[in-house]
Amino acid sequence: MLEFADIQAAATRLHGVAHRTPVLTSRTLDAMLGLRVFMKAENFQRMGAFKFRGGYNAVSALTDAQRASGVVAFSSGNHAQAVALAAQLHGCRATIVMPHDAPALKLAATRGYGAEVVLYDRYTQDRAAIAQALVAERGAALIPPFDHLPVMAGQGTAALELIEDAGALDALIVCAGGGGFLSGCAVAARHLLPGIRVFGAEPQRGNDMQQSLRSGRIVSIEVPRTICDGQQTQAVGVQPFEVIRALVTDVLTAPDAAVVEAMRFAFERMKIVLEPSGASALAVLMRHREQFAGQRVGVTLSGGNIGLDRFIALVSGAEPVD
Amino acid sequence: MLEFADIQAAATRLHGVAHRTPVLTSRTLDAMLGLRVFMKAENFQRMGAFKFRGGYNAVSALTDAQRASGVVAFSSGNHAQAVALAAQLHGCRATIVMPHDAPALKLAATRGYGAEVVLYDRYTQDRAAIAQALVAERGAALIPPFDHLPVMAGQGTAALELIEDAGALDALIVCAGGGGFLSGCAVAARHLLPGIRVFGAEPQRGNDMQQSLRSGRIVSIEVPRTICDGQQTQAVGVQPFEVIRALVTDVLTAPDAAVVEAMRFAFERMKIVLEPSGASALAVLMRHREQFAGQRVGVTLSGGNIGLDRFIALVSGAEPVD
Repeated sequence: MLEFADIQAAATRLHGVAHRTPVLTSRTLDAMLGLRVFMKAENFQRMGAFKFRGGYNAVSALTDAQRASGVVAFSSGNHAQAVALAAQLHGCRATIVMPHDAPALKLAATRGYGAEVVLYDRYTQDRAAIAQALVAERGAALIPPFDHLPVMAGQGTAALELIEDAGALDALIVCAGGGGFLSGCAVAARHLLPGIRVFGAEPQRGNDMQQSLRSGRIVSIEVPRTICDGQQTQAVGVQPFEVIRALVTDVLTAPDAAVVEAMRFAFERMKIVLEPSGASALAVLMRHREQFAGQRVGVTLSGGNIGLDRFIALVSGAEPVD
Repeated sequence: MLEFADIQAAATRLHGVAHRTPVLTSRTLDAMLGLRVFMKAENFQRMGAFKFRGGYNAVSALTDAQRASGVVAFSSGNHAQAVALAAQLHGCRATIVMPHDAPALKLAATRGYGAEVVLYDRYTQDRAAIAQALVAERGAALIPPFDHLPVMAGQGTAALELIEDAGALDALIVCAGGGGFLSGCAVAARHLLPGIRVFGAEPQRGNDMQQSLRSGRIVSIEVPRTICDGQQTQAVGVQPFEVIRALVTDVLTAPDAAVVEAMRFAFERMKIVLEPSGASALAVLMRHREQFAGQRVGVTLSGGNIGLDRFIALVSGAEPVD
């Protein structure tokens, strides 16, 4: 199982490579919600999302011989960019398996970091199988997006920094897809603050992790149709779930409309850009504020990779959400 | 004339009250421009713009007896909010004279800080005369938006912090309207780094300060029709000009279309929101990059107070600019 020492080792590897992103606060938000919020702004991370932490740590953990054969990853977007950039920084080749309907900005950015992109249809094809075939054919190392200890350890460094900067917190809410970010952050947070309550945040339509945690076994769902493209996972990873079951209090959800509201708030009042998945923990806090009344609450703003056209379509209501 | 000691005194007053805003860097931008940029993100300042610094310092510099009679200000927007918030923090009454076509977000925010708002038509009425009448009638203290030493000193603290955090710079580009920000920053920068070149950044259609600096005398223009609503000043202030003439190398301009491009870049690559005037220094750097090749350049991102609807109209091209 993931241990705090793994996260400390990741923090050492990431030092001077990843950005130490700021912890944002908002008097307006605090007054609106009746609590104190400390937001870890991973939209300012390299390549625009927390995923750089895990991707870099995983590529860094390979041997020179392994890196010489290149790396392969499958991802709906940000993990793709993370592995592509991490490979570029290590001077090794990357092949990324991405859904054909991934946001254009994420496809372009992944190619921009020098990676080869292989497209698949997320509703009909199995990305893991495609990636495994590439691994077998090329002898490359697979960097899974979440079910992989070095990835989980890297993601956990975000919670480590948040607590170092914000001090004691009563609760922490982490955007949850496959569970890599949530599990890493839970290990870091519960080690530093044993009494902290840690929550996952999922889009309402893709609440597989909530079902899994509440039932005690991994529940798999159809690919959820949500605007939160970073959280269209069908099931939590096995290794993340082991951590989450032990350390996470609950998983809370917000509908897509609440996610758009959180994106609007972040834009107008905080002057920052969040992609839908990046706003999901903030949306959950806004929607479940009564559970956190008077508390000091940490929230991850996990990414900001959204094109202007898509942002406008969502916040203007041109693309209706519910 | 404004002195560095005035800026140091302002920094002491603002300590723990104003945000120490981050200095942002972007590898993408550096590579694109062929230089190193250090951006002072005053869009994250309290009330969303650098103006809080000057407004707070000026209200703070009044005597208790003066504050008891309240304060009056006239402003196209951000200075209004700054004085309103500064008055609220000092527990005194504020009356703000604002143009009837000021952005709705700025009007609402000014009222939200508890100020009384008096509207006027910026194309036909004289706001200074309206404000002076209020001062005479109520015995309140006028806090001018730029032609006022305590305001200039407060604004200069932004450059002080930028240089403390970024280290040595070859050049500094400051958004320029009435000259309060530029003059304060010029005094701070030239004191800390005597060899630094300091530039003002103006919208092309409202280049009164450029004309003034190049001709050596204050040139007054018609109210410029530019999207940069924070820079629709007709003439630089007398006291700011005294500083600018002595310490500023040149004033450079960018057309509104370049300002929109800078706003887009900030959104998509830096994940931050800038209002048009807030992006003008970045637009000037992008447009005049060849003058700064290979240099370490400081740039002010002076504010982020723009409503989502107006932002969308500008960046989507629904409101054409040239």
